[in-house]
Amino acid sequence: MKRIYLDNAATTQVAPEVLKAMGPYFSESYGNASSLHKEGTEAYDSLERARKIVANMIKANPNETIFTSGGSESDNLAIKGVAFNCGSGHIITSQIEHPAVLSTCNYLEKKGFNVTYLPVDKDGFVNPEDIRRVVRRDTILVTIMHANNEIGTIQPIDEIGKICKEKNILFHTDAVQSFGKIEIDVNKININLLSASSHKINGPKGIGCLFVRGAKLEPLVHGGPQEFETRAGTENVAGIVGFAKACEIAKINDKKMEKLRDKLINKLVKIKGCSLNGGRKNRLPNNVNVSFKNIEGEALLLKLDAVGIAASTGSACSTRSLKPSHVLTALGLTAEEAHGSLRLSLGRYTTEREIDYTVKEIKKAVGYLRELSPYKKI
Amino acid sequence: MKRIYLDNAATTQVAPEVLKAMGPYFSESYGNASSLHKEGTEAYDSLERARKIVANMIKANPNETIFTSGGSESDNLAIKGVAFNCGSGHIITSQIEHPAVLSTCNYLEKKGFNVTYLPVDKDGFVNPEDIRRVVRRDTILVTIMHANNEIGTIQPIDEIGKICKEKNILFHTDAVQSFGKIEIDVNKININLLSASSHKINGPKGIGCLFVRGAKLEPLVHGGPQEFETRAGTENVAGIVGFAKACEIAKINDKKMEKLRDKLINKLVKIKGCSLNGGRKNRLPNNVNVSFKNIEGEALLLKLDAVGIAASTGSACSTRSLKPSHVLTALGLTAEEAHGSLRLSLGRYTTEREIDYTVKEIKKAVGYLRELSPYKKI
Repeated sequence: MKRIYLDNAATTQVAPEVLKAMGPYFSESYGNASSLHKEGTEAYDSLERARKIVANMIKANPNETIFTSGGSESDNLAIKGVAFNCGSGHIITSQIEHPAVLSTCNYLEKKGFNVTYLPVDKDGFVNPEDIRRVVRRDTILVTIMHANNEIGTIQPIDEIGKICKEKNILFHTDAVQSFGKIEIDVNKININLLSASSHKINGPKGIGCLFVRGAKLEPLVHGGPQEFETRAGTENVAGIVGFAKACEIAKINDKKMEKLRDKLINKLVKIKGCSLNGGRKNRLPNNVNVSFKNIEGEALLLKLDAVGIAASTGSACSTRSLKPSHVLTALGLTAEEAHGSLRLSLGRYTTEREIDYTVKEIKKAVGYLRELSPYKKI
Repeated sequence: MKRIYLDNAATTQVAPEVLKAMGPYFSESYGNASSLHKEGTEAYDSLERARKIVANMIKANPNETIFTSGGSESDNLAIKGVAFNCGSGHIITSQIEHPAVLSTCNYLEKKGFNVTYLPVDKDGFVNPEDIRRVVRRDTILVTIMHANNEIGTIQPIDEIGKICKEKNILFHTDAVQSFGKIEIDVNKININLLSASSHKINGPKGIGCLFVRGAKLEPLVHGGPQEFETRAGTENVAGIVGFAKACEIAKINDKKMEKLRDKLINKLVKIKGCSLNGGRKNRLPNNVNVSFKNIEGEALLLKLDAVGIAASTGSACSTRSLKPSHVLTALGLTAEEAHGSLRLSLGRYTTEREIDYTVKEIKKAVGYLRELSPYKKI
């Protein structure tokens, strides 16, 4: 039987259209985009065509769009880029950011920067007014993610952007989970820096971008003058072309996916001891995250895997760690509740039949695991 | 007519075997290597198999091999990684390094580090004894490239390694041009850090590695615990598998290529006013770099391009710059002589017929350009 892949927040299958678009850039148009000959200028032209397409996803200009090796690098370039360019100062972020943002902020603290980690409410939302409350005269950057990778909550980045503009502070948002899924228009929202990744939207791994407007960055990777002298290294043309094709075929605000998501949530919360993590409103169309009382999320994941369903307990980055999710504990969950979490993230190819089968198998697995558990009656 | 690609030092065609190996990792085994389900563990296993193969190219251990997005990132990670881990100190490098090393060193000077840029002799070789001469009590790193990207000279890294060991200083070598072309055994040569890139050896762009032995590095990209907590970000599994396949099919010390290189050099230096840049000995098997008196290298390149030959004037990174090559000027060439240079870099698919045709066309083009030149008689 074909496997059911419900871990699209971790990574996605490369779409056939994307793979087809990339093909020629491996063995035919394989030139170095900096070379002057035909092979080089062809690569350069394809690169710049792709840049326009990727930039247009958020209505940015091509010269505001820097290609990187992925979301983590984009986050690092944005945050360290601003920080090291300023030399010192205060940064505001949230407690539920992706490790690429949190670890970078922790690192900057060691380098003498000050960081405020804002709390979130029980549904996982930052209160924009909190920013106003903690902002300092030396605040150099606000970095708040657009949509959370574990619980799918979409932060009020329009309001946050307004406050940052009012206070004249740069605003970065990690949009790795939302880019290509929900509409973003950088001309309507005040954003200076935005991170995106290709492999979350059916593009290849190893490629991402950073949108930059009105911010001066110190590069992470010095060397050749590529990417507006902000990111050295031979451009990954095939990857960039694939990323652009993934943008072209992306479904923004996918109603069909939202319907499947809601069906899945509604059926799961009917299971005894199951509760939704993150609010129902302002939630990514592809994200479902639930906790089961007295169940070990990892055990549930492995049971599902055995019946052909790929799911996750949270961020893929931390699956090999025993610590409970920092996102779920920030919502106020206990360590046990956090350990009982299951993330199901829908994708481009998810069908209703797959959702139905998944619900059935989760019920079975939960029942089985509770039979084994010392806390049989919940 | 099929084009003749003689710019393999800039980048190479992805070999069909490599593309075939990568294929399944786009649309079938597309899991996140950090995920616990079948898709994830498959990706993880493939990643670790690939790591063994890449590490084995230089007889390193897999846990000494960190995947990066390419050569420039590897150089930056090695040099900044050591520098920021030490906090301050003195670095020794050469005047003919790749921009990824030189710009990084320039940047570190601005951050308070001291850098000595060693000269090279007229053939482009560093004198290892110079290191002994300039080493200081606070020297933290020696970074000398293995083989030069413009003129192909292979530096005496075994001797340099010995001196570094004797002085107890970390040694990094940028082996982007030599890795997969000439033998390197990190158990025979004292190397702490070595940068390599996939796309120079018929692998995909956007992937490289850094070998690390006995050196503590501060990461460039913070975030998830990938790559031994030294380089965060979802692993580019397809790229890594492609890199490994490129390693498997690489031809080390290719005698056939050396013969073609020598034939090309011998024929070119017979052209009036043509001289070889870099010595004949200790030269990469695929590198030819010559200067033509009273010829603009870029004009020659474009003439060749028009007759189906892809060549270069030097580093692809600096083709859009008007400055003469820093490598050629370090050899003692005047700006005019440096501007008259042509780099022809052979590849896996270069044939004798292509070499013959290229020689014929270069003769024609040189004659034509000299006819146009105000210095007709040289």
